[in-house]
Amino acid sequence: MADSEFALIRRYFARPAPDGVLGVGDDCALLPPTAGHLAISTDLLIEGIHFFPDVDPVALGHKALAVNLSDLAAMGATPRAFVLALALPKVDHVWLEGFSRGLLALADAHGCALIGGDTTRNPQGIAIDVTIFGEVPAQLALRRDGAKVGDDIWVSGTLGDADVALRLLLADGSVSDPNGSVLAATRTALEWPQPQVALGLALRGVASAALDISDGLAQDLGHILRASGVGAELRVADLPLSPTLAALPSALARRSALTGGDVYQLCFCAPASARGELAAIAQRLALPLTRVGQIVAGSGLRVMDEHGQVLPPVAGGFDHFGSGQGGD
Amino acid sequence: MADSEFALIRRYFARPAPDGVLGVGDDCALLPPTAGHLAISTDLLIEGIHFFPDVDPVALGHKALAVNLSDLAAMGATPRAFVLALALPKVDHVWLEGFSRGLLALADAHGCALIGGDTTRNPQGIAIDVTIFGEVPAQLALRRDGAKVGDDIWVSGTLGDADVALRLLLADGSVSDPNGSVLAATRTALEWPQPQVALGLALRGVASAALDISDGLAQDLGHILRASGVGAELRVADLPLSPTLAALPSALARRSALTGGDVYQLCFCAPASARGELAAIAQRLALPLTRVGQIVAGSGLRVMDEHGQVLPPVAGGFDHFGSGQGGD
Repeated sequence: MADSEFALIRRYFARPAPDGVLGVGDDCALLPPTAGHLAISTDLLIEGIHFFPDVDPVALGHKALAVNLSDLAAMGATPRAFVLALALPKVDHVWLEGFSRGLLALADAHGCALIGGDTTRNPQGIAIDVTIFGEVPAQLALRRDGAKVGDDIWVSGTLGDADVALRLLLADGSVSDPNGSVLAATRTALEWPQPQVALGLALRGVASAALDISDGLAQDLGHILRASGVGAELRVADLPLSPTLAALPSALARRSALTGGDVYQLCFCAPASARGELAAIAQRLALPLTRVGQIVAGSGLRVMDEHGQVLPPVAGGFDHFGSGQGGD
Repeated sequence: MADSEFALIRRYFARPAPDGVLGVGDDCALLPPTAGHLAISTDLLIEGIHFFPDVDPVALGHKALAVNLSDLAAMGATPRAFVLALALPKVDHVWLEGFSRGLLALADAHGCALIGGDTTRNPQGIAIDVTIFGEVPAQLALRRDGAKVGDDIWVSGTLGDADVALRLLLADGSVSDPNGSVLAATRTALEWPQPQVALGLALRGVASAALDISDGLAQDLGHILRASGVGAELRVADLPLSPTLAALPSALARRSALTGGDVYQLCFCAPASARGELAAIAQRLALPLTRVGQIVAGSGLRVMDEHGQVLPPVAGGFDHFGSGQGGD
């Protein structure tokens, strides 16, 4: 590939660096020292595994950054900057224009500057790795290991929409959608996830543990349980559903809510004494926060139906080896 | 893939986090605030583009980190930590054992901790992204834009060995090696590059500009020239060659030295007044440092033969869209 074509690729992502930052164009980017700890996450997205080859590149650019912003949100960190490594089969200007537009619009919305990266050819398909940097005082970081017996378990937003959309796009036959209205109503959740950065910041000093739901509530909550050395009871009837999912057959909606991935809402724990403060946060952010269970002594997750009966163990969400920082 | 298999993958890379660091296992890693600026670089390596499918996994693990350490070296930064994103077609324990061993041995040698990552399935082949973090006081960082007219141009080590090894492995017919001795002597340069971290630190306050040679001296020096707004004259007869390259036909050795990539030695500029100090650094590090040209007014690179005649422009090294931070 000629230098001139390569220069064109860089053009799509070139932005002036923020004050004090050395951005794209040297051996390294230089980021000024932070006051708090630096929160770092990396996510690698592979064509055919994490996204469809024909996905809208604008949505893909958005999502590539959104999943990393979601990791910062889950840590209670303020977004600062990111680097992008991009492997492409060819220089496709329509694709690059769309991808960069979706990526940079979300970056701008969160004040998160693109400060460096790498581009390479990859005949096998598109691969995208974003590594993101945020800032959080260490003692305020929302870790996974702080859940206490008696804590409420909360989730933000609604669950399962992305899973239903994915099932419809894969045409796996599990969801009936004769007129396309279910896909129309759920596809945005899959392709345009909104990272809950403001919620993560609001939960500093309030939540005892948190993570973002990427592989499904049941599987991801398990990480909190193991890290904190506790168990949990989830009330499946309390899982928050969108009107679209609430109108689907109950077993289907519950399975997607409990095990469906690609949610990018937060699951967090907090003592009962925080319920008032959390109601105020939900109102201020115009974001539903729903209590879905309790942390209990012991280990493992028990899922209860509306009659208090324990449901049989579920398979653990969709697994692409896991995703996100630390491979979880 | 089952959780248990995935846990096995993590096992290869699990290390205790350094004091004050939150490592693998949460949504983000947490790195304590640095005193100096944080130097960040990311490099994405793709099977079939950056390495042969059958390369020794121990060497590949070493090289995946070495190319990033080389970017820190080129910035004069002290290595601190890195994250690894890894896409694999399958869980191959022999491969994972070797790769992690090569990676972590080099990490340990440089006190650079693996603090997080991501693993994913990729039916198309192996993809490896390392994002590395170092520390450098901003005013001491070795940038590309500080070269001054009259500065000497230096390179460390020798040039062209990796390029010759690559040509022999590709069997492109350009190098004759009937008994395999040339490949035997040059292959280490290609597969086990040694990042010049100690040299980068020693050049703080000495070099006016620096970078690492990944795409070939001629092409990479061009980045310094453009960033600094200067030109350069290189003396091709002064390019440092290993005994193996010096024994090859002169045109071939010179082409590899001038345009061959994958070198991971440093090219830097310094005023003539620094020659004594640089001789002392070379002696202390037991690393050859060679003056190969001069920064001149104007723009662009002129390559002179031993008679002072300007050689015709060369093609710009091997190009995989460029490599390294900022895509250069």
